[in-house]
Amino acid sequence: MSTASFAEPARPERIAGAFAPVFARLQPHMVELDVFLRSQVAAFEPEVRQMADYCIDTSGKRIRPAMVFFSGWREPAVVSPELVRVAAVVELVHLATLVHDDIMDDASVRRGRRTAARAFGPVAAVLLGDTLFSHALHLASQFPTTAVCLAVSESTRRVCAGEIIQTMRRGSTDVTLADYRRVIDLKTAELFRVSCQLGSQLGGYPAAFGEAAGRFGRHLGMAYQIYDDLADYFGDEKHIGKTLGTDLASGKLTLPLLVLMDRLAAQERAELLEEIRGARSPQLPLHLRQMATHGVFPIVAAAVQTEITAAAAALAPWTQLAPTPLLLSLCDVLQSQVAALQAPTGV
Amino acid sequence: MSTASFAEPARPERIAGAFAPVFARLQPHMVELDVFLRSQVAAFEPEVRQMADYCIDTSGKRIRPAMVFFSGWREPAVVSPELVRVAAVVELVHLATLVHDDIMDDASVRRGRRTAARAFGPVAAVLLGDTLFSHALHLASQFPTTAVCLAVSESTRRVCAGEIIQTMRRGSTDVTLADYRRVIDLKTAELFRVSCQLGSQLGGYPAAFGEAAGRFGRHLGMAYQIYDDLADYFGDEKHIGKTLGTDLASGKLTLPLLVLMDRLAAQERAELLEEIRGARSPQLPLHLRQMATHGVFPIVAAAVQTEITAAAAALAPWTQLAPTPLLLSLCDVLQSQVAALQAPTGV
Repeated sequence: MSTASFAEPARPERIAGAFAPVFARLQPHMVELDVFLRSQVAAFEPEVRQMADYCIDTSGKRIRPAMVFFSGWREPAVVSPELVRVAAVVELVHLATLVHDDIMDDASVRRGRRTAARAFGPVAAVLLGDTLFSHALHLASQFPTTAVCLAVSESTRRVCAGEIIQTMRRGSTDVTLADYRRVIDLKTAELFRVSCQLGSQLGGYPAAFGEAAGRFGRHLGMAYQIYDDLADYFGDEKHIGKTLGTDLASGKLTLPLLVLMDRLAAQERAELLEEIRGARSPQLPLHLRQMATHGVFPIVAAAVQTEITAAAAALAPWTQLAPTPLLLSLCDVLQSQVAALQAPTGV
Repeated sequence: MSTASFAEPARPERIAGAFAPVFARLQPHMVELDVFLRSQVAAFEPEVRQMADYCIDTSGKRIRPAMVFFSGWREPAVVSPELVRVAAVVELVHLATLVHDDIMDDASVRRGRRTAARAFGPVAAVLLGDTLFSHALHLASQFPTTAVCLAVSESTRRVCAGEIIQTMRRGSTDVTLADYRRVIDLKTAELFRVSCQLGSQLGGYPAAFGEAAGRFGRHLGMAYQIYDDLADYFGDEKHIGKTLGTDLASGKLTLPLLVLMDRLAAQERAELLEEIRGARSPQLPLHLRQMATHGVFPIVAAAVQTEITAAAAALAPWTQLAPTPLLLSLCDVLQSQVAALQAPTGV
């Protein structure tokens, strides 16, 4: 259950069509964002620059910045410096959590490259994450009021809390569905929520829309994390850019396993629990077969869809605003990503 | 070269006299600070509370809060909520760096207790540090303007940069005096500087005094770190609450070793460099004898005094202000701490 990233599509040939038009509209924004991030890093101490640059790679889809830009969208489309700055803030917070996350997961690969923890060592990675956090908050302080800094620092603390709770639960077998939802709400949905809320606020939209956009973001964040947890079992390693089965191997009970456990016979269930506790080596191929037998994939995919529906519902009263169709297009992208998992290989 | 903390006095019986009057004046402030910190932690997610409470122990002398309170001091002495809040901000940033520092140093004991990394595991400690950082910035956002958040986030980034540079230099033998000074300026003096600057600003003092107080803080921070690095060789384990010789063991070239190296014969120097590189096991007793022979202690103690003198000089034009004598009393405390090291045992 690593933090969801808008990973490379699992089956690019099938969903490039969904991605392309959405991200084409954002291309000038993303170019500005990249220029801005690189210029920020240039002001870091020389020893830190190279490490920070390594993290600000361009291969991620930058979903949180996309939510900022779309939530604050105005026609005719101009690239607003305020939106670029707040997009940089949420992306830096996200990158910081990824850097720390990869230390904890002892992950070797992220987006097809060595993780910062592997490239620079875990010690430097702890500090690099701190630097990215600090700089995010520094950028957040550069708005005329304290609103951005207040929102981002609170979100960041909640993201960390989610990660802490998840860490403490590793190897624990009494994780409920409510526990799972609380953790993904904190660690993933929170930053999606604040991205939308701040984007709409800086775009000059009414507070009521900001609230709605925040709810949209939160539900889409939940949907993304559930998708990401599903992809850990049903993704294609080459395309999602990381090793599959890491959640099982590290004793994390995510939704696919929670659903499976409910459906297993007592003996099978007991064996799976032993694997979670680390008392038995993980049997990924076995559980993939069990998941196929018990129809786990469609159940988890339906949970993603439930969140997507709730996200869209939050925007229903605001169809006349420019951001709404753009934000809804992100739902389509996610649905395409889930669809791309639907014919898992090797099962 | 761990981050300097106002550790328990090395020989309490000899310097209690210096500490007592200084900290007696701050007692109501420190009580308020503790109440405030505990109330903040109470708002954390339940899983995180206990860990945060563990860090906010009361055994440290809270030197950074003391600098905030003294820099913003007004007669008659009242405990200002703004100063309490900014004191909490700098203390939380400091605690966060300690938590991360102890992971990196693989330290087992801090202030006579198990470190957070040992008590909760390094993974949880990474996140706990992040949580403390985030909450510090959240409190910093709760002032009417962005000034505090701007200053603290920039300082925090510089503190992290100092730690990164120090980490990258571990085991490196080409560290110059200038490198050493740059690292301690970033990792320690910076937060001392901002504590004084923000304290005077929130106390309503003129900007020119704020500048002077910042310079005072920076020099006192340099002095403190040099003292702390000296104590790693000449302290008393029981009283400073941590293991001696950790800098040598972890390949960190701090001032006592830099001074010693300059004075050793070629062969002895080559052997010491091998220890720094980790190619030879550390010979602490040997180097303590060499330090005694070459008079390293008084040279490093003089470097502390040089910084203390520069700190005091920064306040020379401001003797009429209430904060000045209080801040200068911190110089006396530090001088007493150095004096308490002067008759090292076991050499």
